[in-house]
Amino acid sequence: MRDEPATQLARRLGYSFDDPALLARALTHRSAASEHCERLEFLGDAVLGLVIAEQLHQRFPDIDEGALSRMRAALVCRDSLLKVARRWKLAEQASVGGGERTADGRLRSPSIVANMVEAVIGAVFTDGGWGAARAVVLAAWDEALADIADGDGRDAKTRLQEWTQAHGWGLPEYVIRDAGVGISPRFLAECHIQGVLQGRGTGARKKDAEQGAAGEALRAVKG
Amino acid sequence: MRDEPATQLARRLGYSFDDPALLARALTHRSAASEHCERLEFLGDAVLGLVIAEQLHQRFPDIDEGALSRMRAALVCRDSLLKVARRWKLAEQASVGGGERTADGRLRSPSIVANMVEAVIGAVFTDGGWGAARAVVLAAWDEALADIADGDGRDAKTRLQEWTQAHGWGLPEYVIRDAGVGISPRFLAECHIQGVLQGRGTGARKKDAEQGAAGEALRAVKG
Repeated sequence: MRDEPATQLARRLGYSFDDPALLARALTHRSAASEHCERLEFLGDAVLGLVIAEQLHQRFPDIDEGALSRMRAALVCRDSLLKVARRWKLAEQASVGGGERTADGRLRSPSIVANMVEAVIGAVFTDGGWGAARAVVLAAWDEALADIADGDGRDAKTRLQEWTQAHGWGLPEYVIRDAGVGISPRFLAECHIQGVLQGRGTGARKKDAEQGAAGEALRAVKG
Repeated sequence: MRDEPATQLARRLGYSFDDPALLARALTHRSAASEHCERLEFLGDAVLGLVIAEQLHQRFPDIDEGALSRMRAALVCRDSLLKVARRWKLAEQASVGGGERTADGRLRSPSIVANMVEAVIGAVFTDGGWGAARAVVLAAWDEALADIADGDGRDAKTRLQEWTQAHGWGLPEYVIRDAGVGISPRFLAECHIQGVLQGRGTGARKKDAEQGAAGEALRAVKG
C-alpha cells in the first residue's frame, strides 16, 4: 500500500484536498514553475490573520486592541511560520528550481517554506472554505496560542485565576479528557468555576486545551 | 409601529443581530464609554481583509500577488470605509463623547465612522460567523469591487473579453435578471461564452452583477 507524500501531508494538516492540484500549487516555488504559490500566499496570509485575530479576541476579552495587534504580530511572524513548516515537513516536499537547494538537498532559504505555510492555508481555504482553513490553522497554532501571553506576561489561565480570586470565586478547576495517542485533537479540557462549567478547549497538549478552556471561561464570567 | 435606528441599520446592513449589545458596542467611540468599539475594529479589519482578498483572488485569476495587494489596499482605504459609513449612516448613530460633535451635531473627525465600519463588521462576525460577515461586506463593497481594475486599468469584463477574443471565442454575453426594487441583491447576471454558462454574479447594480459574473467566467475558462 502506497502512502504518498501528499497523503502524509494531508494527515499532518488534518485536511484532505478535493482538488490536490491546489496543494501542489501551494508547494511550488516561483523558481520551479510559472504556476506558483504566491497568489495562494496572499490569500492564506489573510486567512491566518483572521483566525489568529478571532482567537485572541476570544481568549483575551479584557485587553486592548494595541496589545491584540502586538500579540498577533508575534504569532504570525517568520519564526512561527517556520515552526509550522517544520511540523508539516514542507521543506522535503517543496518544488523549487535547481538553484534553490544545496548539493545535499537542503533549501538555501528558509523563507521559502515559511511563505508556503501561508500558501497551504490559502489552498485549504480555496478548497474547503473558512471552516476547514480555520481548523487547520487552529491545529497548527495550538501550542503557540496556548503559550502566548499578554503584554504583562500573563496567559489565559493566569488571567482567569486572578479574576476569580479577585471576585472571591476561588480557583478554577480543570477536567481533562485524553482521547488517546494519535487522535487529533488529543485533549479536551473543561474549566469549572465554583462547580459550574464555564469553558471548553482542545489541544495536542493538556496545557493547550486548558488555555483554550480558560480563555472561554474568562469570556463567560466577564460577559 | 416603531422603527428604531438599530432596526433601520440592520436593514441597511442586511443583517439582524442575535445580540444587539454587540452592535451597540461597535457604534460606541472610546470618548463615550469604556466598553468601546476598538477591539471589534481589530477583528473587523481582519474579516474585511479576508473577504476582499478572497474576492480579488477569485475575480482576477491571472494577476500576481503584488497587484492583488495594491488592489486590496485601494479597496480598504479610509475613503472606501467612509463611503460605506455613509451608506450605513453611521454618523447619526455613533455614540461619542460631547467634545466629538460640533454644535450642529456633526462629527468633528470622519475617521471615527470609518473605524466604526470595521467594528460593525467585527460585530457581525462575532454574532453570526464568517458567512454572515462575508455577506455584509460583499453587499457593502459590491460597487467598489465592480469598479476595481487591475494595474493596467482593466476590469473583469474587459479582461474576459480580451481573453475570449484572443482565443477566438467571440464576445461574452450577459443575461440579467432583475429581482426588483428593494430586493437585495437586486441583479443576477449570467455570463455565457459560446452559449455556455461560465459564471454568475450578483449586485445592487447591473454593472456589479456583470463584473462578478465576468470574474467567475474568467476563472472558469482559464482553469
